[in-house]
Amino acid sequence: MHEISIESDILASNEMCAQHNRQHFIEHGVYVLNLMSGPGAGKTTLLERTIDMMKDRFRIAVIEGDVQTHADADRIAAHGVPAVQINTGGACHLDARLIENVMPRFDLDALDLLIIENVGNLVCPAEFDLGEHDKVMLLSVTEGADKPLKYPVMFHVAKALLLTKVDLLPYVDFDVQSALRDARVLNLDLQVFQLSSRAQTGFEAWCEWLEGRIKRVKSLVRA
Amino acid sequence: MHEISIESDILASNEMCAQHNRQHFIEHGVYVLNLMSGPGAGKTTLLERTIDMMKDRFRIAVIEGDVQTHADADRIAAHGVPAVQINTGGACHLDARLIENVMPRFDLDALDLLIIENVGNLVCPAEFDLGEHDKVMLLSVTEGADKPLKYPVMFHVAKALLLTKVDLLPYVDFDVQSALRDARVLNLDLQVFQLSSRAQTGFEAWCEWLEGRIKRVKSLVRA
Repeated sequence: MHEISIESDILASNEMCAQHNRQHFIEHGVYVLNLMSGPGAGKTTLLERTIDMMKDRFRIAVIEGDVQTHADADRIAAHGVPAVQINTGGACHLDARLIENVMPRFDLDALDLLIIENVGNLVCPAEFDLGEHDKVMLLSVTEGADKPLKYPVMFHVAKALLLTKVDLLPYVDFDVQSALRDARVLNLDLQVFQLSSRAQTGFEAWCEWLEGRIKRVKSLVRA
Repeated sequence: MHEISIESDILASNEMCAQHNRQHFIEHGVYVLNLMSGPGAGKTTLLERTIDMMKDRFRIAVIEGDVQTHADADRIAAHGVPAVQINTGGACHLDARLIENVMPRFDLDALDLLIIENVGNLVCPAEFDLGEHDKVMLLSVTEGADKPLKYPVMFHVAKALLLTKVDLLPYVDFDVQSALRDARVLNLDLQVFQLSSRAQTGFEAWCEWLEGRIKRVKSLVRA
């Protein structure tokens, strides 16, 4: 006798767990963001600046997903917010069960914003609902403008696109208008923010958007 | 030797086909809507009224999905727009390949709006991307206000919720505020329209929204 693993069961089971997570988050009034990108697009650096800009007004925590190492959680913790590292031990994406497993390590009632930094990968993370409220993706201009056509699912499921490293635009061939048009073909309502962590530009609009999302979740909490 | 069907391959293959469909639709400037609900929520009646209100200004076609019969396509065709019936022959949802197969039967350059009426089912259709631009769901007030909690995936993926048969609200126990709150917990940006096909209320706002979506797609067509 041998076992056959049917992956659709994994996806269906993940979906159920994700909906459970989402219900749990709303009960505690926590807005949850699933941050995704290819490797090196600047997720952790973005998080560091975002935390510094918002931590005086909102209670923030971070889940760091990586295949291995706890380097990113250490970087985040240095900014004074709770950070838990998940090592997937090989898997190229987080899933809802992994999030559920670490939830007891947070006091959700003491949080406004939980950011999950997914494994650096433009493919599989897009297909696994974690129970977040929004998926947000980064694309750095150094990666090239052809990415929407090559990774359509990620662009299709994202609520917002953070175009990062825009300070490097003068030095790379990246047609912003063309890339954004290709992204919007996949996602009519895609919110776009152009950011540079190095030049510290674009963060006001991004943080303002995040603040609006946090408040929207708060407005749904039952009295 | 025996064959093993891995359903994840079906979903992955569907996703690829859906992205291809979406690219195809945008090349022809057609906005595509995937209309979903449980059985008898009023999809076809909604379509009839929507077509009557919009057909003078926009070129519309419909794909009707049903397990069997061509009754719905006949109803739509009577309103003077092209309608193609897909019979799934048992399957409880449409998939991207079924849409691709019937595309040659339409002159996409002669269309502004293609509406796909999915099989009446609140579960599986939510999981199959057809390449549409928006998923829109109907919930009739006679079905009960507990549906967001029971069918979370459908509410999570829908761009808009059409609450139908609202003329019956005085005669049923349906807490609109509670249902909408539960729906928005699953989907922070859910657009909601309250409609009655019988009383002919709510159609102006719905058609105005549709018109905005059609124009957004047109704005993305390359010159």
